[in-house]
Amino acid sequence: MEAIYEKIRRIVEKELSCSAHDMEHVMRVYKLCMRLAENEKVDLDVLKAAALLHDIARVKEDKDKTGKVDHAVLGAEMAERILKELNFPKEKIGKVKHCILAHRFRSEIKPKTKEAKILFDADKLDVLGAIGIARAFMIAGEYNERMYADVDIEEYIKENLVGAKPDGRIKDVSKHAPNLEFETKFKHIPKKLYTKKAKEIAKERMKFMEEFFKRLKEEIEGRL
Amino acid sequence: MEAIYEKIRRIVEKELSCSAHDMEHVMRVYKLCMRLAENEKVDLDVLKAAALLHDIARVKEDKDKTGKVDHAVLGAEMAERILKELNFPKEKIGKVKHCILAHRFRSEIKPKTKEAKILFDADKLDVLGAIGIARAFMIAGEYNERMYADVDIEEYIKENLVGAKPDGRIKDVSKHAPNLEFETKFKHIPKKLYTKKAKEIAKERMKFMEEFFKRLKEEIEGRL
Repeated sequence: MEAIYEKIRRIVEKELSCSAHDMEHVMRVYKLCMRLAENEKVDLDVLKAAALLHDIARVKEDKDKTGKVDHAVLGAEMAERILKELNFPKEKIGKVKHCILAHRFRSEIKPKTKEAKILFDADKLDVLGAIGIARAFMIAGEYNERMYADVDIEEYIKENLVGAKPDGRIKDVSKHAPNLEFETKFKHIPKKLYTKKAKEIAKERMKFMEEFFKRLKEEIEGRL
Repeated sequence: MEAIYEKIRRIVEKELSCSAHDMEHVMRVYKLCMRLAENEKVDLDVLKAAALLHDIARVKEDKDKTGKVDHAVLGAEMAERILKELNFPKEKIGKVKHCILAHRFRSEIKPKTKEAKILFDADKLDVLGAIGIARAFMIAGEYNERMYADVDIEEYIKENLVGAKPDGRIKDVSKHAPNLEFETKFKHIPKKLYTKKAKEIAKERMKFMEEFFKRLKEEIEGRL
C-alpha cells in the first residue's frame, strides 16, 4: 500500500503546485493525523488517503469566481476518481470521502467516524501554535491586512462579523488583523475538537498564542 | 513646536498612504526613539522630526524600477524641503538630515550624533521580538516565501548569500523563509546597535525570537 500514498501525494502536489503553502499544510496535517491515530483503532488506509487528499480542491475553490465551489465537496469527488484509478480498495473509498466532506469547520456534514474526527482535528490544530501565528501573519501580508488592530473586540464583532457572509469572510479586510482572527476565531477552536489528544495539543498551542499576542501588544505599546 | 510634529506626521502618512504597514512602523519607531531618549541628552526636536520622516521615501524606493533610489538619501532631501516649508528651526535641519541619511543598515554614512544613533537603533529594534516575527511572516506572505525552510544554514549562505547583490536581496525568494532571515540577518543586529538601552531591549527580544523559531520547528516536526 505504501507506494499508493506516494502516488497520491504526487497527484496532490501537482494539483496544489501554484500554492506551495497548501502542500506544506497537507503534509503537516498528515503527520498530525498519524500522531492522533497512535494507539487508536483506526483504518490507517482511510486516514492516510483522506489526509493527503483533503485539500486537493483548495486551489480550484480559490480560483473560482462564482463562490459556489466548496473544496470539501469537490475534493471528495476528485478523491473518489483518483482512488478508483489507483485501484484503492473500493470499500474504503466511501469512508475517505466522508472524511473529506466533513473536514470543514462550517460544513453541515459533521464527522461521524474516528478517521473523520481525527482529520477534522488535525486540520484545525494546524491553525494554532507557532504555526498558527506564522500562517495568520502570512495571510495578513498577502491580503494587506494590518499587523495589529487595537480595537474593542465586542465592538469589532458587532460591526464586522454580525451579518457577515455565511462563509465567514469579514466585510472589510483592511480593518482586519491576526489578533482579531485570534480573538474571534482561533479561541473557539479547542472546544470544537473531537479527540482527547487533539484537545491537549490545542490547549498547549493556545497558551503559546495567548503569550505571543500579549507580548506583541506590549511591544507595540512600547512596554517591551 | 508640538503642532509641527502633527503636521509632519500627516505629510508622512499621505506619502506612505499606499503602505499602511510603513506608517505603523514609523509610529513604533517614533515611540521607541522617545523611550531610548529618556534620561539622555538629546535634541528632541531633531529626534522627533527625524523619526517621523526617516522612511518618507520608502514607497518611492519600492516603486522605483531603476534600483537607483535610496530612501535614506531621497528621504533626507524630502525632509529638508518639508521642514523648510514648515519653518522648522533652520539650524536643526542639517541634524535631522544626518539622522535620516545614517539610519540604513547598509549605508556608508554611519550615525555620528546621539540622535542619529538612537534612530538607527530604534529602527533596527522594530525587526526584533514579536513585532519582528509578525513583520517577517507578513513579508513572507506578500512575496510567497515558504513558512519554514529546513535547510543547512551554512550551505544556504554559501548558495544564496555569497555573491548576492550589495543591497542584500537574496537570489531566489522561493527558497527563502523567515527562519533563514532570522539566522542570517536578525541574529547579527544586537551587536551592531549603538546605545546601551537598545542593546538591552534587543537581547530580550532576541530571546523571544529564538524561542519562537525553536517552537515552530518542533511543531512542524510533529513534536509539539
